[in-house]
Amino acid sequence: MNWEYVQPVRIIFGNGQIKKLTSEIAKLNGSNGLLVTTAGFVRRGMAARILQLSGGTIKQVYSAVSPNPTVEECDNCSSILRDNQCDFVVALGGGSVIDCAKAAATFGLTSCAATDFLGTGKAIPQQHLPIIAMPTTSGTASEVTCVSVLSDHNRGIKSPMNSYGFYPTVAIVDPELTLTVPPHLTATTGFDVLCHAIEAYWSVNHQPVCSTLAVHAAHLALTNLRQAYKHGDDLAARENMAEASVTAGLAFTLPKTTSAHACSYPLTNLLGIAHGEACAMTITHFIRFNANHGCERVVQLAHKLGYEDAEALANAIDGMREDTGMLLDLKSFHLDNTQLEQLIQGSKHPNLRNNPVPVSEQDLREMYESMI
Amino acid sequence: MNWEYVQPVRIIFGNGQIKKLTSEIAKLNGSNGLLVTTAGFVRRGMAARILQLSGGTIKQVYSAVSPNPTVEECDNCSSILRDNQCDFVVALGGGSVIDCAKAAATFGLTSCAATDFLGTGKAIPQQHLPIIAMPTTSGTASEVTCVSVLSDHNRGIKSPMNSYGFYPTVAIVDPELTLTVPPHLTATTGFDVLCHAIEAYWSVNHQPVCSTLAVHAAHLALTNLRQAYKHGDDLAARENMAEASVTAGLAFTLPKTTSAHACSYPLTNLLGIAHGEACAMTITHFIRFNANHGCERVVQLAHKLGYEDAEALANAIDGMREDTGMLLDLKSFHLDNTQLEQLIQGSKHPNLRNNPVPVSEQDLREMYESMI
Ligand SMILES: [Zn+2]
Ligand SMILES: [Zn+2]
Repeated sequence: MNWEYVQPVRIIFGNGQIKKLTSEIAKLNGSNGLLVTTAGFVRRGMAARILQLSGGTIKQVYSAVSPNPTVEECDNCSSILRDNQCDFVVALGGGSVIDCAKAAATFGLTSCAATDFLGTGKAIPQQHLPIIAMPTTSGTASEVTCVSVLSDHNRGIKSPMNSYGFYPTVAIVDPELTLTVPPHLTATTGFDVLCHAIEAYWSVNHQPVCSTLAVHAAHLALTNLRQAYKHGDDLAARENMAEASVTAGLAFTLPKTTSAHACSYPLTNLLGIAHGEACAMTITHFIRFNANHGCERVVQLAHKLGYEDAEALANAIDGMREDTGMLLDLKSFHLDNTQLEQLIQGSKHPNLRNNPVPVSEQDLREMYESMI
Repeated sequence: MNWEYVQPVRIIFGNGQIKKLTSEIAKLNGSNGLLVTTAGFVRRGMAARILQLSGGTIKQVYSAVSPNPTVEECDNCSSILRDNQCDFVVALGGGSVIDCAKAAATFGLTSCAATDFLGTGKAIPQQHLPIIAMPTTSGTASEVTCVSVLSDHNRGIKSPMNSYGFYPTVAIVDPELTLTVPPHLTATTGFDVLCHAIEAYWSVNHQPVCSTLAVHAAHLALTNLRQAYKHGDDLAARENMAEASVTAGLAFTLPKTTSAHACSYPLTNLLGIAHGEACAMTITHFIRFNANHGCERVVQLAHKLGYEDAEALANAIDGMREDTGMLLDLKSFHLDNTQLEQLIQGSKHPNLRNNPVPVSEQDLREMYESMI
């Protein structure tokens, strides 16, 4: 079997490790940085803490990143970097903030706008400013990937961009930053982690280093998500979910995600379901679907996770969805036929082809019909 | 728990993947390379194959690397790089060749000799030429580590040097290159892999990404080494040992090795026992020693590998040592008291402090006495 592995991001993990920001900026010889974050972190004093840790080297703050960051937000960041000749970027937030900062750290060195690249296939410049990513949720793992997802409302697109230069230089993963994440967001982001791990394992692009880490991440998510949801102040559960998130990130970046992620995109774009909850909507369907169509890897995964078979794994995850208040079907949306058709067509995302068993339009139709 | 992870080497794995050398040199814009290898690979035509794959971009060959590479050999490589203003290095061989090439790729950009740095504590320059490492044994995993071990016979030292710049740019791990490794070398290098994995798991510096990969590597080595030894032409067994070697490399680089490796150094330097065989001499002793002194991680590891307890794991490895013709004790060396004392003192290597249970001089004495 042929495979490749690359993971250029240095990871610093641990409670209280945001304090390492000081020495990491020094390693970069950073003297003129931009902090990218959200208004919430400014309000709660976290931005001030970061500025203090930077010892005056962070000279600009951009705090207007929205949950689905837009090309305009990215361009605003790029402008600040360009106009002030910044030499590094710190991203403090969830996947949205880190995605926005990653793209800006590249485009800020050019005279280009994000729309020049988003969905155009134009080659992304390789030069980029160094990024220190500090995730505040256990979910997307954007801090260890080279993907940035932006939205362009003028063109009606939300799309990922890939560039080697988008890999952060350092990810500081401090589980204490996730202690205040509210229960519902803990659950949705946690299911994102679980789906990254499961889909990485069975992806047609699976390879041994990533598969090994995927099992580790899935095990941690399965055994800690309920507790982190119910008792958000349980630091051990938060720590385990943070470890699950970052190891799932290492696991899925190369093999990429598959069917559940493919279906999540229209569920989010058309119905507004949060990313992780949208992934969770179909993951157990695809566990059963893949097992019923002879996929050995899903059975193997179930065994490695301590379940008797794929059905037992799917049942366990369905139980967790119920216990954490996730949507279990689409009945409450009262979808008409046009919407159903949009869901089906929207699910034919390129990632669908990474599923170990081919998924036909009819398969998608039957799945969505069973959900409405 | 606080931990860090970094792994800057891109890995290309698979049968026949040495053909990727052509495109990898192109990615580096390499036009004037040096091939570092051994006389054996020149004789067997492999060097010619590499030169052909380089499309004329490799312009120099250094083939005089010995099994324990010396500072002089490294300096010779450095001189070639310097005098010819080479722009990349390809290393084809076992750990010795790759270690020599890694150090030369740094020193060749300076006017320094290897002795300036080996064992002196002098800071190693960061600038270095890009290295493409192509291992021909499944053992040291030098292709994914930042360590180079050289010997200086004038000063009577053999010592590792660490430098971030020693990480190769790319490791091309082609299991077909290991098909011709003779049985004894297959066994000794294979036990090196197994010890890297076991020691990484229980090292006091253990961390979750490396531990996860360590279990994977140990499992592969335990289930494939016997077959690769007995049937060297079994490509599946060779592939699994190559995967074990490179994943064990990812697993031990950061946590470092421990007791069995610490003891291996005097066993090699004083008695000439090959590195992997020397590690295998004491690994089962330390499995039992650690378990008997309350180390939970060795019991955990045994369970994860499918054994009832640490004793069962140690017994399985002892059986494998016997079946592959490894030395089982030191009786044949007829050691006198001075030699015994030298072994004990030599085993107090810094890596001994990474063992999860403190190992006293008395512990070492009892162990070696039981072996003579
Ligand atoms: Zn996701
Ligand atoms: Zn070794």
